[in-house]
Amino acid sequence: MSRRVYLDHNASTPVHPEVLAEMLPYFSDVYGNPSSIHGFGREAREGMDVARERVAGFLKVSSQEIVFTSGGTESDNFAVKGLAMAKGKGHLITSLVEHHAVLRACRALEAQGFGLTCVGVDEHGMVDPDDVRRAIRPDTLAISIMHANSEVGTLQPIEAIGRIAREHDVPLHVDAVQTFGKLPIDVDALGIDMLSFSAHKIYGPKGAAGLYIRKGTKMVAVQHGGEHERRRRAGTENVAGIVGLGKAVEVRARDMSAEAERLAGLRDRLWNGVRERVADVRLSGHPVHRLPGTASLLFRHVESESIVLGLDLKGIGVSAGSACTSGNVEPSHVLVAMGVPVDWAMGAVRCSLGRSTGAEDIDYVLECVEPLVRKLRQAMPVGAV
Amino acid sequence: MSRRVYLDHNASTPVHPEVLAEMLPYFSDVYGNPSSIHGFGREAREGMDVARERVAGFLKVSSQEIVFTSGGTESDNFAVKGLAMAKGKGHLITSLVEHHAVLRACRALEAQGFGLTCVGVDEHGMVDPDDVRRAIRPDTLAISIMHANSEVGTLQPIEAIGRIAREHDVPLHVDAVQTFGKLPIDVDALGIDMLSFSAHKIYGPKGAAGLYIRKGTKMVAVQHGGEHERRRRAGTENVAGIVGLGKAVEVRARDMSAEAERLAGLRDRLWNGVRERVADVRLSGHPVHRLPGTASLLFRHVESESIVLGLDLKGIGVSAGSACTSGNVEPSHVLVAMGVPVDWAMGAVRCSLGRSTGAEDIDYVLECVEPLVRKLRQAMPVGAV
Repeated sequence: MSRRVYLDHNASTPVHPEVLAEMLPYFSDVYGNPSSIHGFGREAREGMDVARERVAGFLKVSSQEIVFTSGGTESDNFAVKGLAMAKGKGHLITSLVEHHAVLRACRALEAQGFGLTCVGVDEHGMVDPDDVRRAIRPDTLAISIMHANSEVGTLQPIEAIGRIAREHDVPLHVDAVQTFGKLPIDVDALGIDMLSFSAHKIYGPKGAAGLYIRKGTKMVAVQHGGEHERRRRAGTENVAGIVGLGKAVEVRARDMSAEAERLAGLRDRLWNGVRERVADVRLSGHPVHRLPGTASLLFRHVESESIVLGLDLKGIGVSAGSACTSGNVEPSHVLVAMGVPVDWAMGAVRCSLGRSTGAEDIDYVLECVEPLVRKLRQAMPVGAV
Repeated sequence: MSRRVYLDHNASTPVHPEVLAEMLPYFSDVYGNPSSIHGFGREAREGMDVARERVAGFLKVSSQEIVFTSGGTESDNFAVKGLAMAKGKGHLITSLVEHHAVLRACRALEAQGFGLTCVGVDEHGMVDPDDVRRAIRPDTLAISIMHANSEVGTLQPIEAIGRIAREHDVPLHVDAVQTFGKLPIDVDALGIDMLSFSAHKIYGPKGAAGLYIRKGTKMVAVQHGGEHERRRRAGTENVAGIVGLGKAVEVRARDMSAEAERLAGLRDRLWNGVRERVADVRLSGHPVHRLPGTASLLFRHVESESIVLGLDLKGIGVSAGSACTSGNVEPSHVLVAMGVPVDWAMGAVRCSLGRSTGAEDIDYVLECVEPLVRKLRQAMPVGAV
């Protein structure tokens, strides 16, 4: 196997060379603890300050509103639990298609006595803002709706939901792990009070992420200890990772617009190529309001893991649903919420494109996918999934 | 300022060149998400598996008993809250000299209705195991006592405490962030059920750490989301950081014994040199049962931050207490618990030695510290602190 094609950028991305170059001094040369007041510590803090300014600049917010965390999952847990614990009791609203980091954090709070409403989605995976409005109760303490779905790529109507949240004076948390650094995000225009983001989805390192918290939002810390991050998140900061996050955002701000257009073209090449070659296939997610580089293909009457493993033998990396739930043989909770029939949902394959993806990669995937699906369908009686 | 001497290894350490070399491929070359089932993901998982084996080998436990986290603070929060939330209610025992990550996690649980007993320490900072025994109640659900204190270096009598914990069938968590990779740790002999450790204190990267959880210990996850780390800690793993943690442990296992002896010699050179040159100075912590490389010096009638900043001007990095509380003008909670009088506690300066420390560094510090303390004492009326 010499040829390799990576189409799983929604799961993780390679660190950009410019990002790695900027991180490198922060391992063995600038190694102080940023909480230390001596020169070794101050150097480390300065690197982190630059990163914080870059992230804040990208979101057009104050750097004091940025808290660094260890990952998107921590950011989501921090947001939802930090809001809930600040009030002690009350009601939360989220959607059925959120990442497990939000959904299971909400379920954990529900088990502790908080109220929870999970709004549904339409067949494109989109939340109806009116459903959010109807779910609001006098004791609703937070709304958490994602920006783009990692599995099917659908963009949620955050602006409309933000307007409703403001009308009812309820803080809105948005999991933007799949859009931060891919699309422009104006937290004021969208009415967002908290926003989760992560480095490793945008060519930064794993283990570095953050949460934007609008000034004045009533939150409590979830991880207790030292007085780091203005007492909002205890623990020695991952300085090199944070420096990488800052650089990744800077590089994306420069490249994302041209890249989005290029990826949308490649995604169309992929989808058009697949439907020309393979029968009984659908593109899931919203036809228009979607991430440019994500194509979630539903192959009817095939098991998605068989396709993933078959393509893997050809050196191609794609995902059977989101990476966090792969290994799980149930159809994804996102497709279930969208009402996708099980004979289609079981054959869901997500292709997520990125920087290194070229037209020749797409053509290679198209070459491989047709005979693979044909073989798998022959091996399995129609309707037997 | 050309000469620089770093004596703050308990706060953080430079990444060892062998560790960085092992990490490097995991940024831009092996970049898959370890939860992905394709080759890109499997490569990443293999790197993480090696690290897990190395950590488990060092502790002589099963690799399935190791959970990776983002830092010592997360490990401590996870241990204490994971044990408490598994039972839902009950009583916790810890000590007054724990790291804030344990103390404040326990306080947060106390605010939620859990019982809490914080046992005191003697003038050397040592817990009396009999105090732990007396604190045990029928509803005690966990004991959390650190291995070595980060500020004064005192080693706690974990074996005796472990015996008491076993007699009462109460799980024992040990924060070993300051001893893991510095001293041999036999969790069976010591009766430890959970052990926190971190990479960046032992020449690994910041942002990578872990928790040993003895098989059968009743715990729940604290960070919710995907099914990572056998459902014990959700979130995409920091693969490069974890690879670095594994390598750091391997290097330490090889070097730590000779290094401990060398550091103890340098620490004695420092302490003897200081007391020969400066009046009214003490070494805090236990005279025998202590970390080899840590010297916590108490300069009477001087403010510790003035010493730290004065030495910083000479290129020397030392700490006024633990890094996590520096910036805080109160005497450290550890020295208060030890009953150190305030006129001594306010002048506490921690020197923590490491790999790069040589005799000439110690001699340079000795050269600088005597005139500095003399000048500071002249500027400040005796007893005026």
